[in-house]
Amino acid sequence: MSELTLIERHKMFNGHQERYRHASKTNNCEMTFSIYLPPMALQGYKVPVLYWLSGITATDENFTLKAGAQRFAAQWGMALVMADTSPRGEGVADRDELGVGLGAGFYVNATEMPWAKHYQMYDYIVHELPELVESHFPVTDKRSIAGHSMGGHGALMIALKNPGRYASVSAFAPIANPSETPLWQKALTAYLGEDRSAWLPYDSTELVKNATQTLPIWVDQGDSDEYYQELRPEAFINAARGKGFNVQFSMRKGYDHSYFFVGSFIDAHIEFHADALGL
Amino acid sequence: MSELTLIERHKMFNGHQERYRHASKTNNCEMTFSIYLPPMALQGYKVPVLYWLSGITATDENFTLKAGAQRFAAQWGMALVMADTSPRGEGVADRDELGVGLGAGFYVNATEMPWAKHYQMYDYIVHELPELVESHFPVTDKRSIAGHSMGGHGALMIALKNPGRYASVSAFAPIANPSETPLWQKALTAYLGEDRSAWLPYDSTELVKNATQTLPIWVDQGDSDEYYQELRPEAFINAARGKGFNVQFSMRKGYDHSYFFVGSFIDAHIEFHADALGL
Repeated sequence: MSELTLIERHKMFNGHQERYRHASKTNNCEMTFSIYLPPMALQGYKVPVLYWLSGITATDENFTLKAGAQRFAAQWGMALVMADTSPRGEGVADRDELGVGLGAGFYVNATEMPWAKHYQMYDYIVHELPELVESHFPVTDKRSIAGHSMGGHGALMIALKNPGRYASVSAFAPIANPSETPLWQKALTAYLGEDRSAWLPYDSTELVKNATQTLPIWVDQGDSDEYYQELRPEAFINAARGKGFNVQFSMRKGYDHSYFFVGSFIDAHIEFHADALGL
Repeated sequence: MSELTLIERHKMFNGHQERYRHASKTNNCEMTFSIYLPPMALQGYKVPVLYWLSGITATDENFTLKAGAQRFAAQWGMALVMADTSPRGEGVADRDELGVGLGAGFYVNATEMPWAKHYQMYDYIVHELPELVESHFPVTDKRSIAGHSMGGHGALMIALKNPGRYASVSAFAPIANPSETPLWQKALTAYLGEDRSAWLPYDSTELVKNATQTLPIWVDQGDSDEYYQELRPEAFINAARGKGFNVQFSMRKGYDHSYFFVGSFIDAHIEFHADALGL
């Protein structure tokens, strides 16, 4: 375990909630992540993994502390891996603008300076983090992915770009079509430059239009979400259904963008992924 | 509702998670509390209330965000009221010492200056807060009380001092015998003076020795609690059992003092209170 430094460990639902720090080759800095290992994993059985990607300003701790997902991961026998939302630490670029910089890596591989030096979150989430997890913990190579807001964008985008790599994907209030949303165009410009063609490979709605293979997809959205106009879930759903893909879309009356929304439906999402993972 | 100022409201498990500010006559400052109203309450039915008292450094938000209790309150049809742990604001005394000052009111009526001016948390929790809640929300006058650490002390102490006022009490890792624990003697001295006889009416272990009436009591304790030596749950349990009271005591292997412990068993505690409240 020399690559991973344990920061904290707590017993929870007879499993372990743990937090680790490690040197990331991809992001060229130290990264932190959290993992929940269900009781089965502590008893020596290998379990599949649900990766969770969080939204802007979050760290690995928001979902860990607020969603209540561990109760259901324990019941189903699934590990949860909570990633951070950007590189961090001395020398990592930041900017005082929503969606750019610390806590807002947007799950892309940045090509523009100063971001390109550390902000390689796509490769980190798709390759480096699973390799670490799968070599250090009692898990199988079966994976699903889910997220909230910017992390919902990350989950949909990563699942669609990597056919066969994830058994299922679900997204709470995802940024579903960032290349067409003025607020997020600023972030894409910062990380990827002004050429719009560099944005499209990271836009879930564009990706689903060109997808040839699908997987179980669930988008969950509150109709009282204060960021609704910046999310465009219908653009993604319409594009997916236009391709004949079977996408589940839930519209939740009165729910907002917060973790009170995520927590209210996380049990059903864990079951959705458990089913796809063969549990 | 002129006495209460709504700070935030979120839909959660088909009920409402709300946060309010109000002028407290008892504490002579503004106070904040959170309330979860289950779906039944929004449909016009009156529901009983579980009061939650938190530990040192917490506010009303820790339990609100981390315990996952609302899922079960929604299922049983019970409101949750999360109190703050001390008076706060301009002019409210503080001290850089564990267990004294902001976030550490210890649920006593302070008699010593400068604390006596605002730190009247016992009267606030027993009288002012329930009066506000019962006059502004669709709740009955049936109450139970629970808490964690310093709040576990508060819950046990308040339930024992007010026979008939609460249907049940449960405590996670409570400070169960503060008058005999050197660390907390400092807090009791600050708030109540050096005369030990002023401490005993706030010490659950002393109170249970002299109790003539009982109620359903549950103490839940992790055996890997990093504050174990400062809690003394056995002193309370032995005193209660010495009186012939039927007290439930759970010792949880490997669990620590955190909300990961509280969250792991909150479902069973909500059920315990639901039963006592006649749900």
